[in-house]
Amino acid sequence: MTRIDDLPIRDELRGKSPYGAPQLNVPVQLNTNENPHPLPEALVQRIAERVSDAARTLNRYPDRDAVVLRTQLAAYLTETTGHPLEPTQVWAANGSNEVLQQLLQAFGGPGRTALGFDPSYSMHALIARGTGTEWISGPRTEEFDIDVEAAVAVVREHRPDVVFLCSPNNPTGTALPAGTILALHEAAQEAKGGRGALVVVDEAYAEFSHRPSTLPLIEGRPTLVFTRTMSKAFGAAGLRLGYLAADRAVVDAVQLVRLPYHLSAITQATAHAALEFSETLLGYVEELKTERDRVVAELRAMGLDVTESDANFVQFGRFADAADVWRRLLDHGVLVRDNGVPGRLRVTTGTRAENDAFLDAVRAVTKEINE
Amino acid sequence: MTRIDDLPIRDELRGKSPYGAPQLNVPVQLNTNENPHPLPEALVQRIAERVSDAARTLNRYPDRDAVVLRTQLAAYLTETTGHPLEPTQVWAANGSNEVLQQLLQAFGGPGRTALGFDPSYSMHALIARGTGTEWISGPRTEEFDIDVEAAVAVVREHRPDVVFLCSPNNPTGTALPAGTILALHEAAQEAKGGRGALVVVDEAYAEFSHRPSTLPLIEGRPTLVFTRTMSKAFGAAGLRLGYLAADRAVVDAVQLVRLPYHLSAITQATAHAALEFSETLLGYVEELKTERDRVVAELRAMGLDVTESDANFVQFGRFADAADVWRRLLDHGVLVRDNGVPGRLRVTTGTRAENDAFLDAVRAVTKEINE
Repeated sequence: MTRIDDLPIRDELRGKSPYGAPQLNVPVQLNTNENPHPLPEALVQRIAERVSDAARTLNRYPDRDAVVLRTQLAAYLTETTGHPLEPTQVWAANGSNEVLQQLLQAFGGPGRTALGFDPSYSMHALIARGTGTEWISGPRTEEFDIDVEAAVAVVREHRPDVVFLCSPNNPTGTALPAGTILALHEAAQEAKGGRGALVVVDEAYAEFSHRPSTLPLIEGRPTLVFTRTMSKAFGAAGLRLGYLAADRAVVDAVQLVRLPYHLSAITQATAHAALEFSETLLGYVEELKTERDRVVAELRAMGLDVTESDANFVQFGRFADAADVWRRLLDHGVLVRDNGVPGRLRVTTGTRAENDAFLDAVRAVTKEINE
Repeated sequence: MTRIDDLPIRDELRGKSPYGAPQLNVPVQLNTNENPHPLPEALVQRIAERVSDAARTLNRYPDRDAVVLRTQLAAYLTETTGHPLEPTQVWAANGSNEVLQQLLQAFGGPGRTALGFDPSYSMHALIARGTGTEWISGPRTEEFDIDVEAAVAVVREHRPDVVFLCSPNNPTGTALPAGTILALHEAAQEAKGGRGALVVVDEAYAEFSHRPSTLPLIEGRPTLVFTRTMSKAFGAAGLRLGYLAADRAVVDAVQLVRLPYHLSAITQATAHAALEFSETLLGYVEELKTERDRVVAELRAMGLDVTESDANFVQFGRFADAADVWRRLLDHGVLVRDNGVPGRLRVTTGTRAENDAFLDAVRAVTKEINE
């Protein structure tokens, strides 16, 4: 049998294994930050209608520029952030992963560097490496915040071409104040002199935050980009629809590297339908925020160390052996995520019943450990 | 206003414009090799059913490995090529463009080279460059064939890491005999010594060929890969579903570079439905092949120089000024493609009525030119 290493693959891929959370069949799955609410049946019907319409011309290539969808996404962002956006300032792709890959193909790549502040969304580093961009890991405080002074110093030292910020940050849950984003954006521009640097704020979990989105900061800052996804707030992880908002020049630049017809007519039609139901779906988000705050409060009441959360998940600890706690929770039928942050685990906010099951399991495991 | 060149984009992108055929609104559009047959209404209904099912769990991430879809694709290839394939030998992505990009990320990239024989599908070179792979352009004969001796010599000279073959070839229409593929595969392995080289045969138009597919050649050749698409034979250009067949080690290798959850649950469901209708859709292919052969015969009867076609399009000429003929055909309401092959144009096989309109327009334009 031929193995991967028998093939002429790139040297840096030898011995590697694919990225991805373990997909285990467990009663309570709170490991991948999915939205626990299925789409309402009325939306399922609307998707079927819109997809049927699209399927009737499926023999034709899709709208390469996804103009209708981008118009809707711009309207959604305008309404929810209060900042007026044009469709030309919005770009969509198959998941925010593909958006990030396109940004790195245009602004990163061989001979260039990208900086992020770890622990953060691990795909930033993986996609950087996948596009040949050197990855630099910047520091966070013990409370998983970004210390502006320390962060600016790292930017000045390494002069990265691309800076990744994640707000609210995955896997810690913390959102960034506007001041931090502005200070890092300014430092990144100064560090690169006339050429400037791209600053990408990953707002995948923006709708779950206690604070308003800082997306309006793009005004007058053509090197500041915000990425979003329909996977979380729209309850559509299976759809793979990510998007960005930025100066239209950034959208033009991304079109130089995107694969032509990257976004299928079926995906465009489904996303279109989901955006028509944004009010209903944002209602689910409000429920989840309440549940998230309850989980934080109850974990704290157990005496655990819980990171402030602006997302649909909660980082909790501190455990002497997080991997052991992860396994014990699994024995109780609850799957959470071990992101490799020392002493911490991450739990997605599920339904009220799922959260109760999780909290009960934590109580049981805590008792086991202390016995 | 900020322009692209004001941004810190990569130097090689400066001054570039995005790839893509002009999308003009013309009565007879025969420029992008789309299948003129809309999907049958029964299939549209089946898509709506399967997509509705998928939409009911859209809050969950899709099957990352698309096991059900790959099982179906393997069964389809087994049935149509007579060569037994396992699902582990098949991989799917958003269009064969994404499949090719993944192959180049794993087997090409910075410091590596890819060779193709031009004129061929221009995305091979574009995706190579987009992944930092150096592109080498090999020769074709005056009849747009690959001369084995000349081709082997180029392989020996440049020792490419990846070789692209396109059979049937876009935009010329010519299919490759097995002997050519075997000779180039062997030469490519020898040229790289122990490491070997990947040979990718792009069979996007395989179902339209007069000859059987050479895909069974993958047996015992772990560095030989065939790519396919549902855009053409399945009449589903809007779906963006490309796939490959190869040794399972190649599929494992591609999983090291693919973005996680790259293929949406909606795309998987739609492709699933279309594969259930493959018999009907292959019936349309037979009609199109008859029409294609008619177009070739009628163009030849006009005294034109027509390249032998195994695809759903026909390359014709020879014109002193192909761009002028392209414009004149457009004036007659027929949009064909000028791929930059000197003196030649490419016309997609449409419905009988569309082909008649095209042939009438060619007669009229030929008359205009000769007046």
